[in-house]
Amino acid sequence: MLKIGLLGCGRIGQVHARSLMRLDSAKIVAVADAFPASAAALAETTGAEVRDVDAIMASDDVDAIIICTPTDTHYDLIHSAAKAGKSIFCEKPVDMSADRIRDCIKVVEENGVGFLTAFNRRFDPNFANVQARIAAGEVGNVEIVTILSRDPSAPPVSYIESSGGIFRDMMIHDLDMARFLLGEEPVQVFAVGSALVDPAIGEAGDVDTAAVTLTTASGKICQISNSRRASYGYDQRLEVHGSKGMLRAENVLENHVEVATEAGFKRAPTLNFFLERYEAAYLSEMQHFVDAVTNGTPAAPSITDGLRAQVLADAATESWKTGKPVSV
Amino acid sequence: MLKIGLLGCGRIGQVHARSLMRLDSAKIVAVADAFPASAAALAETTGAEVRDVDAIMASDDVDAIIICTPTDTHYDLIHSAAKAGKSIFCEKPVDMSADRIRDCIKVVEENGVGFLTAFNRRFDPNFANVQARIAAGEVGNVEIVTILSRDPSAPPVSYIESSGGIFRDMMIHDLDMARFLLGEEPVQVFAVGSALVDPAIGEAGDVDTAAVTLTTASGKICQISNSRRASYGYDQRLEVHGSKGMLRAENVLENHVEVATEAGFKRAPTLNFFLERYEAAYLSEMQHFVDAVTNGTPAAPSITDGLRAQVLADAATESWKTGKPVSV
Amino acid sequence: MLKIGLLGCGRIGQVHARSLMRLDSAKIVAVADAFPASAAALAETTGAEVRDVDAIMASDDVDAIIICTPTDTHYDLIHSAAKAGKSIFCEKPVDMSADRIRDCIKVVEENGVGFLTAFNRRFDPNFANVQARIAAGEVGNVEIVTILSRDPSAPPVSYIESSGGIFRDMMIHDLDMARFLLGEEPVQVFAVGSALVDPAIGEAGDVDTAAVTLTTASGKICQISNSRRASYGYDQRLEVHGSKGMLRAENVLENHVEVATEAGFKRAPTLNFFLERYEAAYLSEMQHFVDAVTNGTPAAPSITDGLRAQVLADAATESWKTGKPVSV
Amino acid sequence: MLKIGLLGCGRIGQVHARSLMRLDSAKIVAVADAFPASAAALAETTGAEVRDVDAIMASDDVDAIIICTPTDTHYDLIHSAAKAGKSIFCEKPVDMSADRIRDCIKVVEENGVGFLTAFNRRFDPNFANVQARIAAGEVGNVEIVTILSRDPSAPPVSYIESSGGIFRDMMIHDLDMARFLLGEEPVQVFAVGSALVDPAIGEAGDVDTAAVTLTTASGKICQISNSRRASYGYDQRLEVHGSKGMLRAENVLENHVEVATEAGFKRAPTLNFFLERYEAAYLSEMQHFVDAVTNGTPAAPSITDGLRAQVLADAATESWKTGKPVSV
Repeated sequence: MLKIGLLGCGRIGQVHARSLMRLDSAKIVAVADAFPASAAALAETTGAEVRDVDAIMASDDVDAIIICTPTDTHYDLIHSAAKAGKSIFCEKPVDMSADRIRDCIKVVEENGVGFLTAFNRRFDPNFANVQARIAAGEVGNVEIVTILSRDPSAPPVSYIESSGGIFRDMMIHDLDMARFLLGEEPVQVFAVGSALVDPAIGEAGDVDTAAVTLTTASGKICQISNSRRASYGYDQRLEVHGSKGMLRAENVLENHVEVATEAGFKRAPTLNFFLERYEAAYLSEMQHFVDAVTNGTPAAPSITDGLRAQVLADAATESWKTGKPVSV
Repeated sequence: MLKIGLLGCGRIGQVHARSLMRLDSAKIVAVADAFPASAAALAETTGAEVRDVDAIMASDDVDAIIICTPTDTHYDLIHSAAKAGKSIFCEKPVDMSADRIRDCIKVVEENGVGFLTAFNRRFDPNFANVQARIAAGEVGNVEIVTILSRDPSAPPVSYIESSGGIFRDMMIHDLDMARFLLGEEPVQVFAVGSALVDPAIGEAGDVDTAAVTLTTASGKICQISNSRRASYGYDQRLEVHGSKGMLRAENVLENHVEVATEAGFKRAPTLNFFLERYEAAYLSEMQHFVDAVTNGTPAAPSITDGLRAQVLADAATESWKTGKPVSV
Repeated sequence: MLKIGLLGCGRIGQVHARSLMRLDSAKIVAVADAFPASAAALAETTGAEVRDVDAIMASDDVDAIIICTPTDTHYDLIHSAAKAGKSIFCEKPVDMSADRIRDCIKVVEENGVGFLTAFNRRFDPNFANVQARIAAGEVGNVEIVTILSRDPSAPPVSYIESSGGIFRDMMIHDLDMARFLLGEEPVQVFAVGSALVDPAIGEAGDVDTAAVTLTTASGKICQISNSRRASYGYDQRLEVHGSKGMLRAENVLENHVEVATEAGFKRAPTLNFFLERYEAAYLSEMQHFVDAVTNGTPAAPSITDGLRAQVLADAATESWKTGKPVSV
Repeated sequence: MLKIGLLGCGRIGQVHARSLMRLDSAKIVAVADAFPASAAALAETTGAEVRDVDAIMASDDVDAIIICTPTDTHYDLIHSAAKAGKSIFCEKPVDMSADRIRDCIKVVEENGVGFLTAFNRRFDPNFANVQARIAAGEVGNVEIVTILSRDPSAPPVSYIESSGGIFRDMMIHDLDMARFLLGEEPVQVFAVGSALVDPAIGEAGDVDTAAVTLTTASGKICQISNSRRASYGYDQRLEVHGSKGMLRAENVLENHVEVATEAGFKRAPTLNFFLERYEAAYLSEMQHFVDAVTNGTPAAPSITDGLRAQVLADAATESWKTGKPVSV
């Protein structure tokens, strides 16, 4: 039974708490949050104690830390937890600065603690199935990866101003997915972008519609496109063209009902909310983390995966700003 | 080059004429119709001569007769053509009376002429593919056949009054398809029906919504349902459950475009008009007839297939009227 | 917080216990099972106490009873629970005898306790969506209902010998679904059946492949077909043809990935195990029961729904045995 | 009745001849080919006369010229035909040199003759439907266009050596399609490419796997990817993400049959041969040309469309070679 300290009791912290409650092999012992009411509420639901962060780090009855606090706190928390010998599950991004992530890698490695960077989409049953079948050789050598990702609607401009922009807060998931599926590091990034959804996003110095091309040393190609708004919901698709075939993960719709009328055949919209769309992924991700820590095996995506996705997001941002391909 | 005399220049006659014009191995030599203007128009399009029926039967330059005239004329035309040694392509139904079809079988057999009963749906690329894969053993032994067939809209009551009713004018196609897919003769028919689409159809002594259950000697089961009206178009689907798997033929839609909006994912309606839906089937059917006559091999569906479908339609009508299963 | 006593800690009892643990509004207080080890195991997982059945019926801290024991015990348990004023959630079938179910209805009504007959499929998100859209008038008047239901593989003959046969142990779900979707009581049942999957099933006096036609007073038609074996998994589909359109619930597949190779486009098999296929339905069913009891509103499907499905299953069995349609 | 002179009786010439034979409003009067036997064969099939090119240009009974000869002959034939006042249907590419196409535009405009550049895919019923619905505003403003195009197998290296490379011989169709769907001229092209299918293609100085990003002045984005080889057939898909929704054209499969077995649900491969996949497009294209010339309205795609696609293909080639985005 892995004993957990959960830091940050907001929306994503609650998601992970619910996953942990469904696992027989883990138990939330303590929770902490800057807002005492949030911590108290999650303590009530989970049966955990409220403790402050330092106390959790010092607790003998805590084996692993789940970090769901704001990004700018990750660096210090990772350092504290690693030094305290706790395994770490850290929400993405690990940090907004690649150099600071490198510092975190150092402290994690020095202390030999387990670490999972929470790129939840790798655990989606569909995308995980695609990757497993690539690994099994079902489509031969991967040649072209295509990732189509659109959010239902744009976040407020205030969020974008602090998020690092579309490549760092949204496309970073797709950049990690590209690495997961390509099986080889991208060496070049080319990005274009436009503010087509909301001019205020453009005025804030970002774009809401973006496309990236990645290439690897052996010549594999990945095309990604993002939009901050899709009238039909949360659009999350990808496909992999290989030497022996093609794998395609389609959207998850609200249900499997089709209605036929004079207007044609109509199916349901996509699952519209990311917590619902990726519910199974969040559960599977936590199961993987708990199993890895319990068994002493490495968790994946690792903290290095977290670094590499951030480096790609930085390169995409630079490419978009300069209009030129960027080597990584 | 098979030389053809075409009798009946109405809608279905024109369909067969167009098919023949696309074949290199056949040529329409002569056409006839009770309405001289119809015959003249088709002669103009095809380059054929207008002749009267007797002249066509007596023509040395005519090898085969295509019968597209009203059902009540089929009997005499089949007799004349068979005695004249012409191969025969006959629109369905061969005749409204099973006994009279038996007479036709006799004259066809006595004169050794080729004969095809025009159950065009057997030649639909989808349904033909299903049957070929059954024959190849892909789903093992056939156990349950399900046929769903709906017309876009009900014909005028005047048509129904002379058509013999829904089991004979509409479901007969499905009854033939059932035999084609079951690979075994039905021995019992149970039918139910209601006038739900148009009360006038009920007042005319028929139904517009009907369902039939067929069973064979070895216990295979077929369920068929029909409606005279589908808001979403011409619905033509079937599936075959076998010991090793299931084959399913889906509808043919107007195109392969899907639109996603707030309302969900919408595909096009079905091809709505039977001539368009079965265009490929009509061409393939005629190719088969021409090849069979040219090569001296039997055409299928045969005149006996025409008889058996009519017997099943009669039995379904009786079952619906009496409320009891009918043995055949 | 609804306090629950759960009777029967086998497979389905465990399913309902897991659902209850995911609900905030209910709590399992006590469990009972003829096998002490089973009760103890479930008590451990849920934090409930083990009590004997009489003690549970007498417990002041138990509001509602979940009956997951063998069918032949339902009658007595329903009587005890009703007299003790407990609301009742009862696994299907309520009883193998329609007359004994009528006795149960009497005791439930006399004591005014809530009752839910656990036809879980009504709570499947897809089928529930179909019914809700019928109710909203989306396809106009229902005219033809088609239900296709196949199990992955046949149960042992020993099960069939005591189950009451395919119409009572398997098709009863589809008969209830037919009533749910038709919105009108069937007045006639016609059934056919064959032992095509396993001759031993035939020797045991049952069939493994069956088809039923239901008709209602106003002329609506329902066709159901069942097979005990589908190579491709648990096949659960239905469709509703109405005056304004058609609703179709497709299978739930293991994932949304398609692979394209020389052989064509291949999607995953269906979710193969009923507990997995209907996981969401079991949860939604329990939520509905807890809400209904808590709010004092009627739960559905009711005990009368349980009776009517049993009457239809009896009629189907009789029709299959006699070869004649049976009025109900 | 439009009277046609057809130049070049090879594979694509035969395709257009078959289309013309299915149209009532046009007639092939004369054919020419450098190989007399080819001309004679097509004359036999169509009932046309064999004439030499100069004679066709001089014929009073020829209204329009179909140019299906090798690309390097187009320039002179366009000049001759335009000066002779004949309308022109010209296979793509108009010429390998943009400057020479500009000369052709001049002679076509000076002589006021009709001209169609045969980008057949615009006439595919699916792609044409997508464009018509964009034009009707069904998805609002176009923001992202995604085009996925893969050939069943790579051509011989000898073809590639003279074809101008993948961007000019294969992707040019997609570049034209991008313009058709974007409704706005691309202003920048970025291309990447690799020889992953056949190293000999790389040795010949070309690539077999390529991806392009186009951007327009207003910020619309198009991503195209190509492969010379797809194990599953001729893969031709596209989608358009707009402010109000998304339109998606899926592949055309060999049939609409699905088989379910232990391995899952399997549909047919794509129509594998471009002449079959685009049969309807070829017919519709010719119908459009004949109608436009007959009615004196402009045909589209125009010769200017032919120029712009070639300019984009040149820019893509340059971008791939230099590794930099190219402005157009």
